[in-house]
Amino acid sequence: MNKSLILIQCRDEVGLVALISGVLAHHHLNITAMREFVDETSNHFFARIDCVGAVPEEKLLYAALREKLPELSEVVINPNPEKRIAILVTKEYHCLADSLVRNHFNTLGAKVCCVAGNYDHLESFTKGFNVPFHHVDHQNKSKEEFEKELLDVLTPYKPDYVILAKFMRILSPEFVDRFRGRIINIHHSFLPAFIGASPYRQAFERGVKLIGATAHFVTSDLDEGPIIMQRTIPVNHTFGVAEMVKAGKEIEKAVLSRAMQLVFEDRVFINGNKTIIFE
Amino acid sequence: MNKSLILIQCRDEVGLVALISGVLAHHHLNITAMREFVDETSNHFFARIDCVGAVPEEKLLYAALREKLPELSEVVINPNPEKRIAILVTKEYHCLADSLVRNHFNTLGAKVCCVAGNYDHLESFTKGFNVPFHHVDHQNKSKEEFEKELLDVLTPYKPDYVILAKFMRILSPEFVDRFRGRIINIHHSFLPAFIGASPYRQAFERGVKLIGATAHFVTSDLDEGPIIMQRTIPVNHTFGVAEMVKAGKEIEKAVLSRAMQLVFEDRVFINGNKTIIFE
Amino acid sequence: MNKSLILIQCRDEVGLVALISGVLAHHHLNITAMREFVDETSNHFFARIDCVGAVPEEKLLYAALREKLPELSEVVINPNPEKRIAILVTKEYHCLADSLVRNHFNTLGAKVCCVAGNYDHLESFTKGFNVPFHHVDHQNKSKEEFEKELLDVLTPYKPDYVILAKFMRILSPEFVDRFRGRIINIHHSFLPAFIGASPYRQAFERGVKLIGATAHFVTSDLDEGPIIMQRTIPVNHTFGVAEMVKAGKEIEKAVLSRAMQLVFEDRVFINGNKTIIFE
Amino acid sequence: MNKSLILIQCRDEVGLVALISGVLAHHHLNITAMREFVDETSNHFFARIDCVGAVPEEKLLYAALREKLPELSEVVINPNPEKRIAILVTKEYHCLADSLVRNHFNTLGAKVCCVAGNYDHLESFTKGFNVPFHHVDHQNKSKEEFEKELLDVLTPYKPDYVILAKFMRILSPEFVDRFRGRIINIHHSFLPAFIGASPYRQAFERGVKLIGATAHFVTSDLDEGPIIMQRTIPVNHTFGVAEMVKAGKEIEKAVLSRAMQLVFEDRVFINGNKTIIFE
Repeated sequence: MNKSLILIQCRDEVGLVALISGVLAHHHLNITAMREFVDETSNHFFARIDCVGAVPEEKLLYAALREKLPELSEVVINPNPEKRIAILVTKEYHCLADSLVRNHFNTLGAKVCCVAGNYDHLESFTKGFNVPFHHVDHQNKSKEEFEKELLDVLTPYKPDYVILAKFMRILSPEFVDRFRGRIINIHHSFLPAFIGASPYRQAFERGVKLIGATAHFVTSDLDEGPIIMQRTIPVNHTFGVAEMVKAGKEIEKAVLSRAMQLVFEDRVFINGNKTIIFE
Repeated sequence: MNKSLILIQCRDEVGLVALISGVLAHHHLNITAMREFVDETSNHFFARIDCVGAVPEEKLLYAALREKLPELSEVVINPNPEKRIAILVTKEYHCLADSLVRNHFNTLGAKVCCVAGNYDHLESFTKGFNVPFHHVDHQNKSKEEFEKELLDVLTPYKPDYVILAKFMRILSPEFVDRFRGRIINIHHSFLPAFIGASPYRQAFERGVKLIGATAHFVTSDLDEGPIIMQRTIPVNHTFGVAEMVKAGKEIEKAVLSRAMQLVFEDRVFINGNKTIIFE
Repeated sequence: MNKSLILIQCRDEVGLVALISGVLAHHHLNITAMREFVDETSNHFFARIDCVGAVPEEKLLYAALREKLPELSEVVINPNPEKRIAILVTKEYHCLADSLVRNHFNTLGAKVCCVAGNYDHLESFTKGFNVPFHHVDHQNKSKEEFEKELLDVLTPYKPDYVILAKFMRILSPEFVDRFRGRIINIHHSFLPAFIGASPYRQAFERGVKLIGATAHFVTSDLDEGPIIMQRTIPVNHTFGVAEMVKAGKEIEKAVLSRAMQLVFEDRVFINGNKTIIFE
Repeated sequence: MNKSLILIQCRDEVGLVALISGVLAHHHLNITAMREFVDETSNHFFARIDCVGAVPEEKLLYAALREKLPELSEVVINPNPEKRIAILVTKEYHCLADSLVRNHFNTLGAKVCCVAGNYDHLESFTKGFNVPFHHVDHQNKSKEEFEKELLDVLTPYKPDYVILAKFMRILSPEFVDRFRGRIINIHHSFLPAFIGASPYRQAFERGVKLIGATAHFVTSDLDEGPIIMQRTIPVNHTFGVAEMVKAGKEIEKAVLSRAMQLVFEDRVFINGNKTIIFE
């Protein structure tokens, strides 16, 4: 008995679950887990369905679903289980290392096809894992030139996702558009608190008792993309900026790692500037 | 457009979701949220379905579902949204007070029909909320006599659930059987750690760095019933037993409250010695 | 053997701990726990000292400490262990009820001397606990008039602290000044996120995955006072605004309660726009 | 101005803080942070003192402190800030990798001098970080022989601590005695729940809603040594054993990492079968 995964999003209407499950039953697929959600604001329906059964002819199943579902529906049957990712970094190692280690032991749920950095600090470390590293210097060139070079480096790898693992450059809307809904960033605050530069310094100066991290999809609005995952940890008056940065790295790493896992397991739908996550 | 809630548990088989959703669509009910789970060990299927639509004739819908589902299925359509509960206490007020306050402001999701205590310490407090209090003394009588008195007090109120809100007497299997799957206890440890008496003293002596609380259904095996909710909080070397007890009360209260909410919203299924919770 | 508590804040200089502990030893007081912190930015020293020993003549001990410590030091010996508090409310009951219940059972660590509300919704509930309730209507009068009435109500009770338990009026700098460093507010977001009105609506629209609450001292800058305690809880795409409000109430209650406990146990020092907390 | 760290443990008596701080002031050391705790059960005093000042002659300072403190006091001035550690592993990589990465970037707070495994699964991975790996096979030999080989491997490295990073062999009391108070283990449950084998299977069968991890010092009583750090995370009915193992690895890694950091920063005192931690 094979397992299949089906992802659906479409305009909501009466009887959708009946309709979908009817098609699946007709193809002798047993639903073992089904998660669905209707966003009543946008009248949109989202579903993630695990089935078991004799493998159907995927094309026929796809056609059968599309025929019955409303116009403009998106249906994905058995999305590629091993995504390809490119990781962008600057100088900080903690998020990169976490992904490289998991990649090395085949537990990342994706394949790291390359790492690119605007500095070369992490080059030898990356190469030690037999992963290609590209140094794309951002100095003495326009953002346009820099991003063109970056694209030239990334494109041949055909990454499904681009991961900003503490990549400290702001990407242009044009670059973001090239990987629409496929760039994931880790931001070192619990957004929307401390948008912008030096969030730990802002946190220190405000005297907060929690610091946090946020993994989100990148859109052309800086720090405003759909949030995937957030977590906070307590701090106290003995934490200076350096201690906050140090403690923050631990949750940045954990939050990005968990967000990637959710995305790579096809549990995350983008719904406008929000996400729907079927954990 | 009315909302309906449907709960189903039955033997698993291929096409159940299709079958169920087909019946619902036939009755012009639109599924807005469906949560289901198949326990592969026991081959059992559990579902919680929110629908909207013109109110169907419940009896017809029930018959239609039962007819199509496997034998021995349990189907509940629109379970009573306001459960009646009886609360048993000894001397500690924190869990009782939390429920009485919510009951007073109609946010408990259930109706407290009475409180019974083996001491009378909480009598005037309870009556201040216009809730009947019954003092059923356990002293100088056998457990059988005590429980008979307790049953005589509780029975007229026809409670859907009996809540042990820090009730420090162990109930006999016979008593438990009278409210099978309908007694909820708050245990002052993260079970199965520190089963039995004085868990905070045990925790202190072991030098743990976390203490916890567990809300569970009561079965005839003490501290072994299906767990609904657990939470822990950090402690450190400065905590003596008294400080642990004090900190523990806060999570006991929160855990019991959340467990009751889940049960009263019909989100909890008992599956052998475990629970399935559709949060 | 009696227990004493000594609180000190002063300009930092070499040998302060030696100096202080020397004075205490001279008075035959044994230090059982000492917490101190030096804020290097402001060069300020803070200490909280638990001692045991034959009760010294407090005035002599005070004089001995003040004589040895730098100018402008603040020394408090055995602060009043039972603070008097006034609670201000609007319509929401959850924070008020929590304090009234603890007050009733003498576990609040303070005495609720009165409750005042700009609506009368919580009047009978408060009086049920034998606590005076004053309805100070804010309608059809200027803020000045409203606050004058409020002050007239509160002043006779001589409260040590004023607790804003979901009090939905903004207090003027003049009012705040009357209780400088002694007004505690519970804000329904993890500040500085969602400053201002309707934080849960803002949180919903931003699609955050955490909501939070913040207890802070009130200053003339709205939402900018020194933070005492913050906590967050996870939310997900199934939470509408109403569900966030409901879940939020649980942490508002818990955060305010814990913040009050810390303040009433004299564990909190105000240090500019931050707090130092010796937990 | 240099920083110094002083650790003291001794029998408690009146005036200890005064006495200690007097000696430090005499040596022109300013106390910037002092943490102390008196265990009233054992009448034992523990202190961790941060000072700044012109570097004193350490021997003179040591002699001055020992002279004034009770007999049998332990005084450590400026403990070695870079501990040497040996890591023992079996087949699981997650804890080892975390330490090797931090070691590589000099953020572990200790130096990994070697890794030894009873299997060779992690050999090439370890060597990729330029850290020696020793395969000490446990098969076809007595525990005595195995441990003798292990000791022969470890001894030349003179490790300050031995870290059991998912090392799945039980060490004999004789071996443990060789590194008394210096072996740290990560146990994959929130002790004392699920002592012994297969804690995740036990957790799954019990239907718990939390799983956890515990870092503790190893003593001759299996799973009974002083606990340094514990953490739990929520699980639900959808978690099988494999999902619990996977989720558990994340907290095992985080808990061991945090425990090591606390130990390497000299924040942990062993007090009988408990720990005192000055975070």
